[in-house]
Amino acid sequence: MASEQPPFKYFNVTFPQEYVAHVETNRADKMNSFFEAMWVELRTILDTLSRLPTVRAIVFSGAGERAFSSGLDVKAASGGLFGPSKGDTDAARHAAQLRRVIADFQDCITSIEKCEKPVIVAMHGFSFGLAIDLCTAADIRVCARDTKFSVKEVDIGIAADIGTLTRLPKVVGNYGWVKEVCLTARVFGAEEALRVGFVNSVYDTKKQAVDKAIELAGLIASKSPVAVQGTKELLNFSRDHSVQDGLRYTGVWNAAAVQTNDVPSAILSGLEKRVPTFEKL
Amino acid sequence: MASEQPPFKYFNVTFPQEYVAHVETNRADKMNSFFEAMWVELRTILDTLSRLPTVRAIVFSGAGERAFSSGLDVKAASGGLFGPSKGDTDAARHAAQLRRVIADFQDCITSIEKCEKPVIVAMHGFSFGLAIDLCTAADIRVCARDTKFSVKEVDIGIAADIGTLTRLPKVVGNYGWVKEVCLTARVFGAEEALRVGFVNSVYDTKKQAVDKAIELAGLIASKSPVAVQGTKELLNFSRDHSVQDGLRYTGVWNAAAVQTNDVPSAILSGLEKRVPTFEKL
Amino acid sequence: MASEQPPFKYFNVTFPQEYVAHVETNRADKMNSFFEAMWVELRTILDTLSRLPTVRAIVFSGAGERAFSSGLDVKAASGGLFGPSKGDTDAARHAAQLRRVIADFQDCITSIEKCEKPVIVAMHGFSFGLAIDLCTAADIRVCARDTKFSVKEVDIGIAADIGTLTRLPKVVGNYGWVKEVCLTARVFGAEEALRVGFVNSVYDTKKQAVDKAIELAGLIASKSPVAVQGTKELLNFSRDHSVQDGLRYTGVWNAAAVQTNDVPSAILSGLEKRVPTFEKL
Amino acid sequence: MASEQPPFKYFNVTFPQEYVAHVETNRADKMNSFFEAMWVELRTILDTLSRLPTVRAIVFSGAGERAFSSGLDVKAASGGLFGPSKGDTDAARHAAQLRRVIADFQDCITSIEKCEKPVIVAMHGFSFGLAIDLCTAADIRVCARDTKFSVKEVDIGIAADIGTLTRLPKVVGNYGWVKEVCLTARVFGAEEALRVGFVNSVYDTKKQAVDKAIELAGLIASKSPVAVQGTKELLNFSRDHSVQDGLRYTGVWNAAAVQTNDVPSAILSGLEKRVPTFEKL
Amino acid sequence: MASEQPPFKYFNVTFPQEYVAHVETNRADKMNSFFEAMWVELRTILDTLSRLPTVRAIVFSGAGERAFSSGLDVKAASGGLFGPSKGDTDAARHAAQLRRVIADFQDCITSIEKCEKPVIVAMHGFSFGLAIDLCTAADIRVCARDTKFSVKEVDIGIAADIGTLTRLPKVVGNYGWVKEVCLTARVFGAEEALRVGFVNSVYDTKKQAVDKAIELAGLIASKSPVAVQGTKELLNFSRDHSVQDGLRYTGVWNAAAVQTNDVPSAILSGLEKRVPTFEKL
Amino acid sequence: MASEQPPFKYFNVTFPQEYVAHVETNRADKMNSFFEAMWVELRTILDTLSRLPTVRAIVFSGAGERAFSSGLDVKAASGGLFGPSKGDTDAARHAAQLRRVIADFQDCITSIEKCEKPVIVAMHGFSFGLAIDLCTAADIRVCARDTKFSVKEVDIGIAADIGTLTRLPKVVGNYGWVKEVCLTARVFGAEEALRVGFVNSVYDTKKQAVDKAIELAGLIASKSPVAVQGTKELLNFSRDHSVQDGLRYTGVWNAAAVQTNDVPSAILSGLEKRVPTFEKL
Repeated sequence: MASEQPPFKYFNVTFPQEYVAHVETNRADKMNSFFEAMWVELRTILDTLSRLPTVRAIVFSGAGERAFSSGLDVKAASGGLFGPSKGDTDAARHAAQLRRVIADFQDCITSIEKCEKPVIVAMHGFSFGLAIDLCTAADIRVCARDTKFSVKEVDIGIAADIGTLTRLPKVVGNYGWVKEVCLTARVFGAEEALRVGFVNSVYDTKKQAVDKAIELAGLIASKSPVAVQGTKELLNFSRDHSVQDGLRYTGVWNAAAVQTNDVPSAILSGLEKRVPTFEKL
Repeated sequence: MASEQPPFKYFNVTFPQEYVAHVETNRADKMNSFFEAMWVELRTILDTLSRLPTVRAIVFSGAGERAFSSGLDVKAASGGLFGPSKGDTDAARHAAQLRRVIADFQDCITSIEKCEKPVIVAMHGFSFGLAIDLCTAADIRVCARDTKFSVKEVDIGIAADIGTLTRLPKVVGNYGWVKEVCLTARVFGAEEALRVGFVNSVYDTKKQAVDKAIELAGLIASKSPVAVQGTKELLNFSRDHSVQDGLRYTGVWNAAAVQTNDVPSAILSGLEKRVPTFEKL
Repeated sequence: MASEQPPFKYFNVTFPQEYVAHVETNRADKMNSFFEAMWVELRTILDTLSRLPTVRAIVFSGAGERAFSSGLDVKAASGGLFGPSKGDTDAARHAAQLRRVIADFQDCITSIEKCEKPVIVAMHGFSFGLAIDLCTAADIRVCARDTKFSVKEVDIGIAADIGTLTRLPKVVGNYGWVKEVCLTARVFGAEEALRVGFVNSVYDTKKQAVDKAIELAGLIASKSPVAVQGTKELLNFSRDHSVQDGLRYTGVWNAAAVQTNDVPSAILSGLEKRVPTFEKL
Repeated sequence: MASEQPPFKYFNVTFPQEYVAHVETNRADKMNSFFEAMWVELRTILDTLSRLPTVRAIVFSGAGERAFSSGLDVKAASGGLFGPSKGDTDAARHAAQLRRVIADFQDCITSIEKCEKPVIVAMHGFSFGLAIDLCTAADIRVCARDTKFSVKEVDIGIAADIGTLTRLPKVVGNYGWVKEVCLTARVFGAEEALRVGFVNSVYDTKKQAVDKAIELAGLIASKSPVAVQGTKELLNFSRDHSVQDGLRYTGVWNAAAVQTNDVPSAILSGLEKRVPTFEKL
Repeated sequence: MASEQPPFKYFNVTFPQEYVAHVETNRADKMNSFFEAMWVELRTILDTLSRLPTVRAIVFSGAGERAFSSGLDVKAASGGLFGPSKGDTDAARHAAQLRRVIADFQDCITSIEKCEKPVIVAMHGFSFGLAIDLCTAADIRVCARDTKFSVKEVDIGIAADIGTLTRLPKVVGNYGWVKEVCLTARVFGAEEALRVGFVNSVYDTKKQAVDKAIELAGLIASKSPVAVQGTKELLNFSRDHSVQDGLRYTGVWNAAAVQTNDVPSAILSGLEKRVPTFEKL
Repeated sequence: MASEQPPFKYFNVTFPQEYVAHVETNRADKMNSFFEAMWVELRTILDTLSRLPTVRAIVFSGAGERAFSSGLDVKAASGGLFGPSKGDTDAARHAAQLRRVIADFQDCITSIEKCEKPVIVAMHGFSFGLAIDLCTAADIRVCARDTKFSVKEVDIGIAADIGTLTRLPKVVGNYGWVKEVCLTARVFGAEEALRVGFVNSVYDTKKQAVDKAIELAGLIASKSPVAVQGTKELLNFSRDHSVQDGLRYTGVWNAAAVQTNDVPSAILSGLEKRVPTFEKL
């Protein structure tokens, strides 16, 4: 990817170890706040990595020391579509435009969830608003001890609409806490995030958080990619379906997946105490 | 509301600060146990507050020191519909009557969930049976350290049917703990409730719990009501739908909601470090 | 059951106290690993206990000191259907066979969930792979302090397909933690299992875990079986449906259930401070 | 009901034969067009009949010769909420008002569907717009040969929102035809309505249509009310759920319903070739 | 199957041509009415044929000239569980028994739907009550011109609970007609059944109906069994899910299924104008 | 669009009248059979027209006299992914590739359904296989009398996977007929298609069918685009959701949509008997 593709504009994409990609938001001077061209590029990156056979797990973080992301670039947003309709477009037509804009925006963030490879987010500093939308679409979240989280949207007069209100309750599983942080926009820290299960681990520094995320990605990348990608897909499917539908889908999925050479390879390696290698996927 | 409407019989409704309503069950001598006329009146109150533009957040608590609510008034219930059919009505006809009674009862409690404004419950003392049904329909739960909770219904021979079995697992997100407390009816305290995420905070006294609930309601009431009411609605919708349906509904909802003046107001106030004010809703 | 039925081959079924059954996997020399005849027999046992009027709660554990269950008997599995199709059956026909095998296997494990009586699993030692599938289908999980858990399947090249990926997130309610343990197959211990709500309690020894599980089963068995079985059913139904569907189903269920004599019995016993007795179910 | 209740203002409610109620819209001079007070009263009537033990089936028709109903009273509507927000309410607050109005309106029409007794609509003349919303919420539709139907809403600039777009496809089962008539607002006649299954029968005159509807209601009213009301409920439930959920709900429903005396009564009457009589419900 | 298995007691199972099985209810003297042992045996037969590689399509009909099936054997039923609870079992415990009986009964009929091979029902004469439950679980229905259909259950005081109310609306797609025939139990004939799409074809005699059903089964049996069985499964799945879920499941299913040799075989045979042969499944 | 964009390669896109686009498959020499580049281009066209304000309705047809489309270009397909995996890729990895290919293919066809403007398909001659997938994703289907339809897929050894099995039953509403034509691949004609409701109208010639489709599109294009696009969206949403969810979504949608100027415009024009004009959308 690195050699074949033009470099990306708003993100650094590197490959810190075999089968692991690292995507870093590269707008530290603006606290990694997002505007439209950025989330469109993010989708391109995730869609590409999703099918790149040399990648098996992805780490996502933000450049600089101050913020994983301070959220939406308010200046861009305030000059845009929010607020009353301008000119003589009626509210219905303005709503139609807004639906399209929101749907495209949601679709870009959903590319993290749809990516066939697991995505681990490593956060630090300010992680506000859109930062929460982004990380709830990922599989695993870790953070530095200094991280300050906020579901900030009510403070600018909107209900969060790019995924937080839909995904955050399913990530942590507890509606009481979610309602409180979404209705008040209060800032919470790493320890609280760990206690409610919003993040999996807290590390002392940003560097440690990113390094540990890469290490975790490396561990996942050492497993059978058929098994890993199936596990992500089946867990995501189950979240949105009944147990019975989940079991049925799982059976159909695995009827193809367990025909992989990875099963005999993995079992044999286990018996021989060797590290197995697996074909690309 | 206070001036235009007749005072309520079983509940005190006051307005401790701007945009905040406080509903207090007023039957302390009977440990705030409930009978039919009470839950019917409760629905009237919640439906009214839901549309009252001067209210943006609601606190619900119980009068007296001994109990938030000891649950259903068993004396009323035991003389009523439970148990074998009397007279010569057959079991099918008796079941038809019971279905209607249960549906009406559920509907009264669901008025808390359907209320467009967030509802914060502050509990203390005995909070048994129906108390759990009531508070799981609310958005946020806090309690005093002395609170004694119990999903008491199995102890009177029934499976809780006014909402606990349906909502409690979705409130705390953990089925193992829910099954244990529902199958055994064992009493649990404030600390356990906090640990499993059933309550958001524990305070030393009932007074503190209620005061802090009012403070929290006040904080929520200071935000854009368009944003707050959208946030409650979208979180409730998401609980019962797939992520994809949640995102789609969110986009349609916000296509109207973000056309509010509250967005430019809130952003401008933020830049000017002023407290924004918002039109009624 | 004990007297009327032939003894089971792979499980010990005993009745440690009135209304309580204890099912113990009896293959300690192979760490209670499972092969097909075992899960077929397990279904027979659960289906029988589900309708046996003398049983009201069930404890499930594993014989020996080393393992609740080390999971699938890999030797049996590796000589079987996993991996590429043998002979000249094409991949589609091989998939059809696999779908049938997986569906039957899932159905056997689901018998724990479908059992009308609550099932409490007491774990110890190695509890890997299939052990997790099994226990997530139960109602309550407790364990000994030495228990070592692992969602082991990715290590043999497959995505867990007998229930873990579908049920585990709904048991603990937290997707972040579930994704980590399912994608890495890392071993976790009793304290972590308690913290995330995967188990309800941790005891010092296996013996204590089993004894306490039987005590808990005894407590549940002392309640009205109409109420207890309704509670299990309604909680399971609610897991897979919206709140509104849950309430509707609950009303229909209870329209028959509250016609039981157990309600007046339980209420009267409560007033007279007697222990109620209930008819069989 | 006739004797105990005040007469209704916009509807004639009569009881043409035992167990059969006839509700007739009584605004022939305005072609039975509807405004808010009318649909609110309609809900009161349906809710009352739903629980009145002397009623087992209901016929709904319109007074006069020209129209079953020409739909919404446009004059009332055009002076009301439709179109751009007036004054300085922003579009988001106007949308909040509209959501409440639409939800209340929908709820009034849904009272036909929720009514526990079957509702048969007999149509004639103009049956436009709201007439379609109304009749799709009923169980059976018949009409006179002169009936002119139209899903008229696109012609006044709105997508039909009181039920037609949701229920009409499920009534007729064919999306191609539904899309055509909803997107074009073209008028269609009785023969076409019969061919696509929108109405069950066509009669030569309005009088015949109403008489035959009453006769059909009488036939239904002669059956066991336990069986009839269960049949309506289970068919409505099945429309919105999977086959498996439908079967499960049916089993729970009938576990109470088949305990009725009506079963032995009906069977015995059948053997003895007598007309059975059934207790009220 | 014929040679290896004991003959069945209530059904004739024959193989009129290669890959086609014919199951005939063999109780003509009782108008092929059903009692419990019969539907249990029917499930055994369908489950066996479902996995028998020499069978690719199944025809189901009834012996004798008078009836495909007159439905439930009322004498058996009236001496059984229907009607008020006998003895001192309370209504709740009686309901628990009934739920089990109904669930088992439903499960037997659902074996027709779950059978991996298409099932074509050929009806004639009386086809009442359970006959409708049975045939709605099948894939295709044909009948003789003399067939008399009735959803008979309301006439014996119950709402049909073995599948008709759940499946019939999804078979014909029209709720208005379904409600009429289910609420009135009126008899309808072959022409009406054809017009509403309940049957696919009407033939002059029973013999013709059965012969044509076998011919149709033969045609289906000449196609790739991978394609045919996939088609049945995907159509059944789609009935109960959204279009999007249907497409997702289809993609996962076909990812294994299109790897069959049948695709190149079928294409090559098509080009060479030969009749393809396919491996068993 | 015509002037600003490069002409398309496989489709002619013209604008036969104001607000109406006509998309014609332009591969008559190959009977308009499809290969990958074609369906990718089709998606581009539909996505563009969906947002082009000068388009309000779309007609889709095929060039030449012989075929609307003979389906998939088998030559392309047979050299491709179908059939057993080549080389040393295992069946699981081959399945992963196939899932991606199928999902992309489905997504291209779904662009017809997702297009915000109604799409009317005019068919003639051979309309086999993929032709059915394509047209079931559209809103309205008309055809010439000579049209020959077939759900052809089982004849090449696959279950149709690009939409037919999911959408066709929901288009016609009758499962019995759908199962027959999907399991047998038999050819059916225009009259049968009309009778079962698969097409809305049959015309004598291809030219008439296309002309009438354009006329119908013109009629739809003369209505308020806010109303028309809302009607399409709400009908599609309702297809996949319960009535209650449909009503809720409709209320939220229309809370913005009825704020359009089109409502007063349309009502005023109606009163003044003028043809209204509407702003673009």
